[in-house]
Amino acid sequence: MSQSPPSSSPSSPPTPTPTPSPPVVIRPCAACKILRRRCAEKCVLAPYFPPSEPVKFTIAHRVFGANNIIKFLQELPESQRADAVSSMLYEASARIRDPVYGCAGAICHLQKQVNELQAQLAKAQAELVDMQRQQANHVVLISSTIT
Amino acid sequence: MSQSPPSSSPSSPPTPTPTPSPPVVIRPCAACKILRRRCAEKCVLAPYFPPSEPVKFTIAHRVFGANNIIKFLQELPESQRADAVSSMLYEASARIRDPVYGCAGAICHLQKQVNELQAQLAKAQAELVDMQRQQANHVVLISSTIT
Repeated sequence: MSQSPPSSSPSSPPTPTPTPSPPVVIRPCAACKILRRRCAEKCVLAPYFPPSEPVKFTIAHRVFGANNIIKFLQELPESQRADAVSSMLYEASARIRDPVYGCAGAICHLQKQVNELQAQLAKAQAELVDMQRQQANHVVLISSTIT
Repeated sequence: MSQSPPSSSPSSPPTPTPTPSPPVVIRPCAACKILRRRCAEKCVLAPYFPPSEPVKFTIAHRVFGANNIIKFLQELPESQRADAVSSMLYEASARIRDPVYGCAGAICHLQKQVNELQAQLAKAQAELVDMQRQQANHVVLISSTIT
């Protein structure tokens, strides 16, 4: 026997209307899966932490914490969020690799390299000016010897 | 009438021994004050976030979160913790100043500067080699003209 649809006759008790739950995506993003929470359709983390790359979220979460990542992303326009996630991942990886200096260590190293290169360039340019002066003297000397 | 010390006679109920609470420093560190928690004598944050500098902790907390800062410090020997706090503060300030790129933006900029300086240096060094060759030719020419 087929089941009859729910009756709305006055004799039967009123059927409670089910509260509509927020739409749920079929596969949760890596962030929601790791945080063990429902991944809503408009999850702010989902576009940047796909289920196929759980390590990305683990790294960022370990350094910045999920709440901070969500807060940072919510404060930015959508067009800048992918870049913000990339830079956070870069920084978090550096902090895990070097827990004392992190990205600041890389900046310090690069700044030192810039200073050294600027000094080498200044020296090479001074040598060039000096040689140009010597060359001009030689040309004068050759001209005077020939004439 | 003075209060008598607790009796240990079998007729009176056993007096519970008060649990000794951890020693408390008189002025809480900036971190514990902001987190509204008791600042224990061995507080891992206290040496790096003195009460006189609350902004330091606010900046680091906003980017990394208090729990992550505590975790990072606990995983390091005490001799490296001051450097770790300095680098975290540097990174957090960069992230607040530039919420999209943070420290990674500075690294990208410095790396570009290094590349440009290396190219300029290579060009200057090539010009120097060329001028040295020309100068050698001039010397030969002057010698042959004189003799």
